[in-house]
Amino acid sequence: MASKKSKAATTSSILVIDVGGNNVKVALGDHPLPIKVPSGPEMTAEDMVEGVKKAIGDWSYDRVSLGFPGPVKNGRPAREPVNLAGGWVTLDYDAALGAPVRVVNDAALQALGNHHGGRMLFLGLGTGLGTTLVGDEFVQALELAHLPYRKDMSYEDFVGERGLERLGKKKWAEHVFRVVALLRDAMQVDDVVLGGGQTKRLPELPPGVRKGRDDAAIVGGVKLWAR
Amino acid sequence: MASKKSKAATTSSILVIDVGGNNVKVALGDHPLPIKVPSGPEMTAEDMVEGVKKAIGDWSYDRVSLGFPGPVKNGRPAREPVNLAGGWVTLDYDAALGAPVRVVNDAALQALGNHHGGRMLFLGLGTGLGTTLVGDEFVQALELAHLPYRKDMSYEDFVGERGLERLGKKKWAEHVFRVVALLRDAMQVDDVVLGGGQTKRLPELPPGVRKGRDDAAIVGGVKLWAR
Repeated sequence: MASKKSKAATTSSILVIDVGGNNVKVALGDHPLPIKVPSGPEMTAEDMVEGVKKAIGDWSYDRVSLGFPGPVKNGRPAREPVNLAGGWVTLDYDAALGAPVRVVNDAALQALGNHHGGRMLFLGLGTGLGTTLVGDEFVQALELAHLPYRKDMSYEDFVGERGLERLGKKKWAEHVFRVVALLRDAMQVDDVVLGGGQTKRLPELPPGVRKGRDDAAIVGGVKLWAR
Repeated sequence: MASKKSKAATTSSILVIDVGGNNVKVALGDHPLPIKVPSGPEMTAEDMVEGVKKAIGDWSYDRVSLGFPGPVKNGRPAREPVNLAGGWVTLDYDAALGAPVRVVNDAALQALGNHHGGRMLFLGLGTGLGTTLVGDEFVQALELAHLPYRKDMSYEDFVGERGLERLGKKKWAEHVFRVVALLRDAMQVDDVVLGGGQTKRLPELPPGVRKGRDDAAIVGGVKLWAR
């Protein structure tokens, strides 16, 4: 307990909550080891708050960054998440967590955590394809995944999980390389970062592309309050 | 002369220079009537400076916004313009114009002048298709025009001038509507503005889309210094 308290005092007092479909990761400041709280289709927003409070015990924090798995508009979830239960749109986050809360899209939080300056495109290779544009003054969640790519199919149809299953690893990896090159040009960025669970299936990274850091969401959560 | 001087004193003292392939438009602050200086493939950057100085006479200004018809990187033209002569990449703009100069892409300047807040996508329908994303904190020139759209052709192949010629006005307009809808979703914007010379060929504007103002580049040039 004493060590937890001293951590709260010496590092940043920003609580980062990264809400996912299988678990919620909670970390204090830039502490490298987040706590995991199991989530799932039954978890309401209030369950999340309760679970987080129980997990963190007496951690002290004065600001919160929350990564939400869905679209965020004007600092609030714009609709209920697909893989969780309800209550996320209407919750009063500041009141529930007892501190000012900044809510952003979870991919945007990860993207921000991987940003080193300049204009960066973050591509999340998972079930689908997440796309986020980051500059020195902004983080913009995009939905490039569903734009046409080829044969009446979208980028996501080729580089998402369905694409990997349909095409096999070799062809899938070729399309990842092509899509990275196309989107790098289209978005006029200096830097491309690949994250998401499927990145490890690539035999190598496309030229000039970085792999996202594992703790990106937590780093992003801390950065979010520095902007 | 006296009226010009009093204008310089009472309105903003920002000189806006919008460099185009046929002429260079020059305006002081938000003066609604720019002066046109003829340009063309023979015009070097130094010719532009000379032409602008001659045209504005004794206008007094203390800052300059310059819209450049090509990619701009770190506040400088990244390569020589396609439709003008050389010297644009290497010119010392501050020294040549005797005041601090902010150089931005010309479409970005127009986009900024049309921005009313929130996230906006500016589509310039001309020979090609210009695409610029504007937020409250940033202006980002994009190159979405060359992304695949359908039948192995790009957005620009359908909604640019070549598309209009190939498809005829009715089909071209249908594709403009479709491309607007696709890119609005992809870029997650609240607002879409159509500018460029071909916009007037549309029988009507797509739903929820605004037409850009004619003096957008000048308004953008003034805004550029307010950011």
